[in-house]
Amino acid sequence: MPRFGGPATMMRLPTQETAKGLDACFVGIPMDIGTSNRPGTRLGPRQIRDESRMLRPYNMATGAAPFDHLQVADIGDVPINTFDLKSSVGIIETHYDQILSAGAIPLTLGGDHTLTWPILRAMKNAHGPVALIHVDAHADINETMFGEKVAHGCPFRRAWEDGCLDNNRVFQIGLRGTGYSRDDFDWSRTQGWTVVQAEECWYRSMAPLMQQVRDTVQDMPVYISFDIDSLDPAFAPGTGTVEPGGLSTWQALEIVRGCSNLNIVGCDLVEVSPPYDPTGNTALIGANLLYEMLCVLPNVPQGTTTP
Amino acid sequence: MPRFGGPATMMRLPTQETAKGLDACFVGIPMDIGTSNRPGTRLGPRQIRDESRMLRPYNMATGAAPFDHLQVADIGDVPINTFDLKSSVGIIETHYDQILSAGAIPLTLGGDHTLTWPILRAMKNAHGPVALIHVDAHADINETMFGEKVAHGCPFRRAWEDGCLDNNRVFQIGLRGTGYSRDDFDWSRTQGWTVVQAEECWYRSMAPLMQQVRDTVQDMPVYISFDIDSLDPAFAPGTGTVEPGGLSTWQALEIVRGCSNLNIVGCDLVEVSPPYDPTGNTALIGANLLYEMLCVLPNVPQGTTTP
Amino acid sequence: MPRFGGPATMMRLPTQETAKGLDACFVGIPMDIGTSNRPGTRLGPRQIRDESRMLRPYNMATGAAPFDHLQVADIGDVPINTFDLKSSVGIIETHYDQILSAGAIPLTLGGDHTLTWPILRAMKNAHGPVALIHVDAHADINETMFGEKVAHGCPFRRAWEDGCLDNNRVFQIGLRGTGYSRDDFDWSRTQGWTVVQAEECWYRSMAPLMQQVRDTVQDMPVYISFDIDSLDPAFAPGTGTVEPGGLSTWQALEIVRGCSNLNIVGCDLVEVSPPYDPTGNTALIGANLLYEMLCVLPNVPQGTTTP
Amino acid sequence: MPRFGGPATMMRLPTQETAKGLDACFVGIPMDIGTSNRPGTRLGPRQIRDESRMLRPYNMATGAAPFDHLQVADIGDVPINTFDLKSSVGIIETHYDQILSAGAIPLTLGGDHTLTWPILRAMKNAHGPVALIHVDAHADINETMFGEKVAHGCPFRRAWEDGCLDNNRVFQIGLRGTGYSRDDFDWSRTQGWTVVQAEECWYRSMAPLMQQVRDTVQDMPVYISFDIDSLDPAFAPGTGTVEPGGLSTWQALEIVRGCSNLNIVGCDLVEVSPPYDPTGNTALIGANLLYEMLCVLPNVPQGTTTP
Amino acid sequence: MPRFGGPATMMRLPTQETAKGLDACFVGIPMDIGTSNRPGTRLGPRQIRDESRMLRPYNMATGAAPFDHLQVADIGDVPINTFDLKSSVGIIETHYDQILSAGAIPLTLGGDHTLTWPILRAMKNAHGPVALIHVDAHADINETMFGEKVAHGCPFRRAWEDGCLDNNRVFQIGLRGTGYSRDDFDWSRTQGWTVVQAEECWYRSMAPLMQQVRDTVQDMPVYISFDIDSLDPAFAPGTGTVEPGGLSTWQALEIVRGCSNLNIVGCDLVEVSPPYDPTGNTALIGANLLYEMLCVLPNVPQGTTTP
Amino acid sequence: MPRFGGPATMMRLPTQETAKGLDACFVGIPMDIGTSNRPGTRLGPRQIRDESRMLRPYNMATGAAPFDHLQVADIGDVPINTFDLKSSVGIIETHYDQILSAGAIPLTLGGDHTLTWPILRAMKNAHGPVALIHVDAHADINETMFGEKVAHGCPFRRAWEDGCLDNNRVFQIGLRGTGYSRDDFDWSRTQGWTVVQAEECWYRSMAPLMQQVRDTVQDMPVYISFDIDSLDPAFAPGTGTVEPGGLSTWQALEIVRGCSNLNIVGCDLVEVSPPYDPTGNTALIGANLLYEMLCVLPNVPQGTTTP
Ligand SMILES: [Mn+2]
Ligand SMILES: [Mn+2]
Ligand SMILES: [Mn+2]
Ligand SMILES: [Mn+2]
Ligand SMILES: [Mn+2]
Ligand SMILES: [Mn+2]
Ligand SMILES: [Mn+2]
Ligand SMILES: [Mn+2]
Ligand SMILES: [Mn+2]
Ligand SMILES: [Mn+2]
Ligand SMILES: [Mn+2]
Ligand SMILES: [Mn+2]
Repeated sequence: MPRFGGPATMMRLPTQETAKGLDACFVGIPMDIGTSNRPGTRLGPRQIRDESRMLRPYNMATGAAPFDHLQVADIGDVPINTFDLKSSVGIIETHYDQILSAGAIPLTLGGDHTLTWPILRAMKNAHGPVALIHVDAHADINETMFGEKVAHGCPFRRAWEDGCLDNNRVFQIGLRGTGYSRDDFDWSRTQGWTVVQAEECWYRSMAPLMQQVRDTVQDMPVYISFDIDSLDPAFAPGTGTVEPGGLSTWQALEIVRGCSNLNIVGCDLVEVSPPYDPTGNTALIGANLLYEMLCVLPNVPQGTTTP
Repeated sequence: MPRFGGPATMMRLPTQETAKGLDACFVGIPMDIGTSNRPGTRLGPRQIRDESRMLRPYNMATGAAPFDHLQVADIGDVPINTFDLKSSVGIIETHYDQILSAGAIPLTLGGDHTLTWPILRAMKNAHGPVALIHVDAHADINETMFGEKVAHGCPFRRAWEDGCLDNNRVFQIGLRGTGYSRDDFDWSRTQGWTVVQAEECWYRSMAPLMQQVRDTVQDMPVYISFDIDSLDPAFAPGTGTVEPGGLSTWQALEIVRGCSNLNIVGCDLVEVSPPYDPTGNTALIGANLLYEMLCVLPNVPQGTTTP
Repeated sequence: MPRFGGPATMMRLPTQETAKGLDACFVGIPMDIGTSNRPGTRLGPRQIRDESRMLRPYNMATGAAPFDHLQVADIGDVPINTFDLKSSVGIIETHYDQILSAGAIPLTLGGDHTLTWPILRAMKNAHGPVALIHVDAHADINETMFGEKVAHGCPFRRAWEDGCLDNNRVFQIGLRGTGYSRDDFDWSRTQGWTVVQAEECWYRSMAPLMQQVRDTVQDMPVYISFDIDSLDPAFAPGTGTVEPGGLSTWQALEIVRGCSNLNIVGCDLVEVSPPYDPTGNTALIGANLLYEMLCVLPNVPQGTTTP
Repeated sequence: MPRFGGPATMMRLPTQETAKGLDACFVGIPMDIGTSNRPGTRLGPRQIRDESRMLRPYNMATGAAPFDHLQVADIGDVPINTFDLKSSVGIIETHYDQILSAGAIPLTLGGDHTLTWPILRAMKNAHGPVALIHVDAHADINETMFGEKVAHGCPFRRAWEDGCLDNNRVFQIGLRGTGYSRDDFDWSRTQGWTVVQAEECWYRSMAPLMQQVRDTVQDMPVYISFDIDSLDPAFAPGTGTVEPGGLSTWQALEIVRGCSNLNIVGCDLVEVSPPYDPTGNTALIGANLLYEMLCVLPNVPQGTTTP
Repeated sequence: MPRFGGPATMMRLPTQETAKGLDACFVGIPMDIGTSNRPGTRLGPRQIRDESRMLRPYNMATGAAPFDHLQVADIGDVPINTFDLKSSVGIIETHYDQILSAGAIPLTLGGDHTLTWPILRAMKNAHGPVALIHVDAHADINETMFGEKVAHGCPFRRAWEDGCLDNNRVFQIGLRGTGYSRDDFDWSRTQGWTVVQAEECWYRSMAPLMQQVRDTVQDMPVYISFDIDSLDPAFAPGTGTVEPGGLSTWQALEIVRGCSNLNIVGCDLVEVSPPYDPTGNTALIGANLLYEMLCVLPNVPQGTTTP
Repeated sequence: MPRFGGPATMMRLPTQETAKGLDACFVGIPMDIGTSNRPGTRLGPRQIRDESRMLRPYNMATGAAPFDHLQVADIGDVPINTFDLKSSVGIIETHYDQILSAGAIPLTLGGDHTLTWPILRAMKNAHGPVALIHVDAHADINETMFGEKVAHGCPFRRAWEDGCLDNNRVFQIGLRGTGYSRDDFDWSRTQGWTVVQAEECWYRSMAPLMQQVRDTVQDMPVYISFDIDSLDPAFAPGTGTVEPGGLSTWQALEIVRGCSNLNIVGCDLVEVSPPYDPTGNTALIGANLLYEMLCVLPNVPQGTTTP
């Protein structure tokens, strides 16, 4: 079968309805009603799956062979209520409680970033407070957006309120752009979180930073939330709230690969907006990053690296 | 000033903050969270305004010169809550109560079709039940969509429940496509509404139908709600819930021009979705249809027609 | 589940690996190596499935409710050899022999038009020579293209050579454009086929023509092959060999609906090329036409028509 | 050679530097600095040539075989001054004087409509005043645009001033949209020209109109100027000054084919704007219409028509 | 109001007709008739304004809060003559004389680069010769282009001829590509200007260069002219004369931020071409760079930098 | 003549039918039937030529002036059989035998990467085994793809089998992504080839690597095969098998410029796919890289470098 034929599942994996029996699962959340600017992330899961079609099982850079060590499937999408954001948040939390109770690690195809709040609530339900590696152009810690507490600019404030986070082990990487005051990023710092602004990353490898992340997180349960808008729009044009001066895919790959040997309990890749991705390449990059996350899950040995 | 320069207001009209002193006003509702399929209508008002730049004041086909007879301005957008559809509905109703209390006729740049429900509520507040000329691929009379009563597939059911409509003077033109049962359109008929399916329109002029509409509506207050997806996607590709086999722009122009000499109390043009409109032409057509609506408002004389 | 979520199967139908137990099945052929101009139809099946997501079960125009009468599933794609056209032709024939031996009627999502030749060979294997309703801008009866006998401009010449067709019951509708001589269409006429050039269709209903088709075909097994380029590019821009002056979707719907009460043994919808379909609307129209074909299969009662 | 290979000349014709020895020639004018709205027609000639690649020599609808009767080549582009519109007008006139002195009939690939003025001046130099068949959404008879006499809204006013036109044999077909007063079209009528507004064309064949055109023009030298924006944007999205409610390609083909047996001295196809033509189909239609013009040139016999 | 609603002014600022009372103003020049290749910059000002909608007042990287220190508005567009480039140049100079006489610093939204010549003439009228920081892929110092002295490849030659520049304080950064001879860049060097070719910038921070610029310029009046094509097309695809191997947005931000504490008298951001910017991201980056220019104007304190 | 006018040949060079009398020639291969994912490279040669229109003769970075030293023309396209890949391979080999027998160095505009195999066979016919500088995201050394030996993932395996390569002087640069096992790249290493994975290139100049390449290759005949997908999709979105984490155009230019003073016998630039290149910029970059290859051919002196 040509790779562009056959069912459009994530990496052409088999599907199943629930996470039962799986070590890890891909799951989509077709949602964009939490976005504050350009819409379209509701179509993210379908396009990420479609563009994942060229992904082969072996990671040429790291030597990881995740399917030799993990049972993985695509368990489809969360049936959100596309007319009610607040209701959808509840649907998501319940859905992830079920995934986690099956013992599977969810890798989420977003969807707007609002979805990370209910996932982190489910994470806390299962694991207690978790460490967080949050890669994004934005801090997403607004108290409210236009008066609302549920929106894609607020998930980490809500998760913090709910005690989902281990504040000494929260990293926000790639932040930049414009805001209302210095406190837009300093609020995070005040909570004990580590903020790495995009300017600190320019022209350089992320390997040293990730060493520091690994040293800090150690064996705590850790969640990875990767907003594709952390990338510079040169690398990821297809998203809704674009900020120039961002990360490169070189850095993005180093960040995800730098999460090896951690106790990862879940991951998401959010904010891919197909209507702003005329070539499909942003979705393709999202698919690659999700695959790289799979490659660093617990129990996946890292091979010999690039010579 | 070149027409592509200067402020991007509707038809390059002056702006004002309220409808005070106006006979008619253009007003935008940048909303898409009520849509059930492709998003993007939140950007409709901006693109309709931008693409209205070539519209000149005189209607070469009908001889109407609306600005000689009406005071018109662009009064900007309704400040909806983009994170809460139900809350937005209330904001819209209040906003239109104010416009109507100023005595202006609103011409609305949508926005998804959910917005017509609160506008019709405001219409009823001001005028009592109104006649309705509803041009659409869809009946939009669902009791609910995925369990929700507020959605772009439900506005006319809600308006009917609220007693906003004069059931003997409701016309639904252009309906087609797939549904769940015959009742999807027959519910309308049961209420006394006139349903004109798209198939009845193919290959023919809409002038006879509009004569019948005018004969029925007479001097009742009448509202025009024009969903751009009533047009075949050949003519209006840039929308979210596409149904082939629709109306042509020839017919659309005949329908709007056929509303002359009616007691029009308000109009909307909804469901233009810029991300699916790569040339901008769907927004441009929307702008033209809004202009044509302006040309048939009360007190605008119709000139000599095309020889 | 929102309609843009969940598995991207045709009409969100369940999938199965074979046609066993089905009355009808959707099957994709992701092929474009037979095309002589713009490529891209290899991606047609995936995009047609994706854009079929808004299709509901009941046909509002004809009253058909196919799923009340037929067992239908999406059986996935034919595993063609994308590097060898001639080899792929053999794979297709074998695949359809199996579908037909299961007793299911295949509705094919193309793919370039080369695929109809091996399907018609399988049809002959199962049913003997069949009547043909071929809707296309092109006759596709070239002896060769650039010296090759297997190409998207030759399938009906090959099928004729192989004795697959009942020459007195072959209709080619929508032909137009440029050629090498009058014989490009007259060859068909010489075989006894009926050629209806596009010019004969302009501005008029196809209902009378389809009455004539039905009167001629009677209860012979009949195959429908619908090349999306039969439509004018206004209606179906997303295809590879565009000819202006074509059919409208109004006519296309009349043609397919006019095939009711025939003994249809198979159908295809070919030549949708997603790279030339920036809105997805051509794929959406293709999906609708495939649904309309399902609605006229044997044993699907036609309801009361539009009043 | 595949049709998408080889030199991108018009219809893959041979090229030559001048019109010497030719009966007819294709010539491009890569100009858009005369446009009042969206730019891009400077790229029209290149894209029309590229998309002409599927055109074969024989006209299946009319039986014309122009290359059996005429010596034709592509003579390249006019070297306009892209920084100075007024200067370019002079360059064009001189260039066409040379073409006409070689005895060739020029078929022009535009470029914005300003170019027709200098071509008509050259026509007058060679033939005296000519009859005109002008197909357009706009009358293009403005005295000035923003104070300028040279612009794409003025060519026919300038040609009239210069005595290039036989006022009793001027036809303007497809006019519509908005203007400044009734006089925008009536000025033409005052000169004795025949104005056929688009509304008069809706839903009907152009054959009767073209019979009237032929009866009037008789054997006068006649020039055809075809602005692609005469077509409805459904049929020709890729242009700069879009007006809904226009002609169909069915009608466009009837108009050009209806010019057979006239004494055509030149033709142009203008206002194709590739940046607004994402599929290339507008350029392709432009190429087809230029081919149809070639098919009705003097000395090309019309074959038996469609049965 | 959602950020995608409301008037599409630069940064959603209030508008006023003149620069009276302002410290700085945004002003658009909707011009592309000076371009030598792809058109479209006439639409630049509108799209830059539209895509500026997410810009918030505080600069998270530099701590600048320009609106706390400066009175700023959007004063709309210059009414150029879109049919005459030479005439437009005069209109622009006069317009900027008025802005400068009001005491405001203009930040210009282009528009093709021709516009910088008349602006520099106005600068000289107000300030005498100015220092120049010119970021571009091209030197734009051609004596003529195709015989014309006014074109987007000539503004700095013209400004030099007119004595607008302080030759010891002119920097051209990012130059690259192909030319006619070594002298294409060495002419600048001969005048005493500093040319920094793109190759000298690859892989490295611009901070040291900007230190050198500041040391040289000192407190001279200085003008910043930023051609978006200085960026590599990866970062800024939406422009007309693309040269690979350019600057990154990381470097662009460093360059503009490196202009702090200078005596800036005006700035422009030119050559954004929306038809070649399908996502809008190039316009968005242009908007960001204009905001960054605002942040380094005199009297805007720079805050504490990124930790 | 404006650069966007005139014949769309490579760099606006003159054309000739054969390579006779040339030192170097540009030649296109309009082929995509060897591709395993997105199609479209059949249109690569036409779009590369079109977008080469701004290339001027002098290399501002290296001082090369190739046309002062070499006789160069565009000799058009290879007449492949677009319906048969295996047959096309033979046509290509024969075509290049003829070019080489004329003594010209071919610079090839692809086309999918399958084409390099027959070119390398022709190279061996003329020169014996050659050194190879292969820049690509993929090793393209598959024994088969889906059972086929001729495909764009196999050319270098086939060339190796045929003894076309000097195994001690083969460099593969930019490899990355996913595969089936470590051996996907180690097979190359086993043959003695040098594999430089993309990760080894991140953030750094390619100059040291190219010094090593030159030291190894010395004066052996060397062929350069540049797959545009070696570039990160940020830099070259318009290709079919995209892998994130690739090279930048900065590095690409360094690689090609680093090939100066070698005994280059041929070059290709492959895998540009116009349907995935909405701005044309990928084709433009391809055109630039082909020009840079011309600049390093034997007998072209390198000028003084950037100061
Ligand atoms: Mn986020
Ligand atoms: Mn973000
Ligand atoms: Mn509706
Ligand atoms: Mn609708
Ligand atoms: Mn066909
Ligand atoms: Mn066809
Ligand atoms: Mn015109
Ligand atoms: Mn026009
Ligand atoms: Mn410049
Ligand atoms: Mn430049
Ligand atoms: Mn390759
Ligand atoms: Mn490759």
